[in-house]
Amino acid sequence: MADDGTPTNSLTDVPGFRVGHAHRAGDGALTGVTVVLAPEGGAVAAVDVRGGGPGTRETDALDPRNLVQRVDAVLLTGGSAFGLDAAGGVVGWLEERGRGFRVGAEPSQVVPVVPAAALFDLGRGGDWKARPDAALGRDAADAATDAPVAQGNVGAGTGAVVGGLKGGIGTASVRLPSGATLGAVVAVNAVGSAVDPATGELYAARFGRPGEFPDLRAEPSAPSTADEGPSLNTTLVVVATDTTLTKAQAQKLAGTAHDGLARALRPVHLLSDGDTVFVLASGARPLPLPEGDPAFAVHLEAGALNELYAAAADTVTRAIGHAVLAADSVGEFSSFRDKCTNQPNCG
Amino acid sequence: MADDGTPTNSLTDVPGFRVGHAHRAGDGALTGVTVVLAPEGGAVAAVDVRGGGPGTRETDALDPRNLVQRVDAVLLTGGSAFGLDAAGGVVGWLEERGRGFRVGAEPSQVVPVVPAAALFDLGRGGDWKARPDAALGRDAADAATDAPVAQGNVGAGTGAVVGGLKGGIGTASVRLPSGATLGAVVAVNAVGSAVDPATGELYAARFGRPGEFPDLRAEPSAPSTADEGPSLNTTLVVVATDTTLTKAQAQKLAGTAHDGLARALRPVHLLSDGDTVFVLASGARPLPLPEGDPAFAVHLEAGALNELYAAAADTVTRAIGHAVLAADSVGEFSSFRDKCTNQPNCG
Repeated sequence: MADDGTPTNSLTDVPGFRVGHAHRAGDGALTGVTVVLAPEGGAVAAVDVRGGGPGTRETDALDPRNLVQRVDAVLLTGGSAFGLDAAGGVVGWLEERGRGFRVGAEPSQVVPVVPAAALFDLGRGGDWKARPDAALGRDAADAATDAPVAQGNVGAGTGAVVGGLKGGIGTASVRLPSGATLGAVVAVNAVGSAVDPATGELYAARFGRPGEFPDLRAEPSAPSTADEGPSLNTTLVVVATDTTLTKAQAQKLAGTAHDGLARALRPVHLLSDGDTVFVLASGARPLPLPEGDPAFAVHLEAGALNELYAAAADTVTRAIGHAVLAADSVGEFSSFRDKCTNQPNCG
Repeated sequence: MADDGTPTNSLTDVPGFRVGHAHRAGDGALTGVTVVLAPEGGAVAAVDVRGGGPGTRETDALDPRNLVQRVDAVLLTGGSAFGLDAAGGVVGWLEERGRGFRVGAEPSQVVPVVPAAALFDLGRGGDWKARPDAALGRDAADAATDAPVAQGNVGAGTGAVVGGLKGGIGTASVRLPSGATLGAVVAVNAVGSAVDPATGELYAARFGRPGEFPDLRAEPSAPSTADEGPSLNTTLVVVATDTTLTKAQAQKLAGTAHDGLARALRPVHLLSDGDTVFVLASGARPLPLPEGDPAFAVHLEAGALNELYAAAADTVTRAIGHAVLAADSVGEFSSFRDKCTNQPNCG
């Protein structure tokens, strides 16, 4: 949030969370990483992988049946499976600060669990071998701040594309009537389109708050064809909240967040996407339960959770819209704004 | 399909599949069941449960790791968990015809595996105890036909509601460029709304073919509040195709079909929904593989599957739109057409 506490429609509106980007562009490189750092003490974490071509690290630790409850950071990275090495830089950065899963007598004896997921951007800058590494992961952790999250061609979105247009990083947040805050950061890199072919409008724009999305429309880009070789992508998401959730509740939240992808991108969750949503719940405030008949206690809790689950989908949809609006043209990949046709000053 | 082979935008356009409805309405009852019968020899089957309050039967048998590969029928039922008894009627009907999983020396020694899922409609007709039973399941199997699927207040959609409006049964189909046919039948009964509050339009109408959806708009209905007690629902789907799929491929298809729910209903997949998608793949025709570089064989197969996965989402979205359009007002539940405001002859 801003210094005066005003929400900035950014994941960092969720108290205690910080986001850092690092990227390499030029000299054949067009890739990067984005780190979401939890508050001191970590956050309850979960993941839901719905894409058919995922590249992930430390996701099994997040299974609700397994030991680790909280993690200190999540990494989104370019570079496909190679980019997962960037998580090592974040692991080292956390270890130096004594943050991680405590496994020994000394406070420094921690194992930082850094769940990570990769998106496909190999070769988009020209050099097939230019990929995020541990040093870039460390840079992103160093850069992490609670300022509004930078959007567009930054971090893990540096080399991202979406349905033939330039993709990138987007963010959004919501303050719920209950007082809970929920925010999302997305790296939008999809086989499918963010643009409704019938109207040229961003799918996500239909789910914006009043005034949130400008009335920009673009000619739909031609869908890629099989002749061009394999089309590989992946949209990555981190949802953060200050609510108290169990790991299982956080996993359900990750699931409904995927509905936000479905509304903003079409098609989605294909074999050629590795679409993955992480959730981080700091537990700074209890799940706010509405008052009502105690016989309906389970329904009252469900109502409070449903509010959060529905908000996750909507916030992810809006963040995807912001990502596409913020992206800049690079090389052969035109931005939505540069393809815009209905305004003199689209770009 | 029609007698002359013309597609009818119905699940029964998929060769060999039949659909039967049975319901009870009046004297306090407002509920029913819908059976989808596979062609002789059964269909490879899968399920994906994404709602938080499911009621199901025989879904574990569909896990790709487990023994049974093909099933002969799937049942959608009202009556919440009580309604699952209706599957017994379909099991008996199939046993009498020697259809099922062969377990003995005699051809008659079969165990029919009938996966089923229930939606919540208890008390909507006035009598809390009026629920589908085995006799009603048998009636639906007897009634099954390859004629276009009846829509609206029929079968498992008889007591369905959606976001305060009357829900019901809907269907849609698509013939893919590859020649494969895919169809869906849905029983729409959601906590969330099928109507965009900003425009009064059906969410699904934006995904229709030219001319498929009339330009009807309605005042959004007030969302239900927690004061009314628990809100329980569930949208149920069967997707059928004539393509050859493995159980695992069919399960992935069930997953992307859920994206169709996300686009037509908002919010969706809540704790108060038991949203469940079944897939039946008859295997009457091979998965159509495009030609291309043999080095990309896995990508070519992925492309063929992606076409099917994307079509499943779109077909489910359209079927949900058809369900809401076809529903008739009952008691306190107004239909979308009766709430329509922008046409003189809305209803």
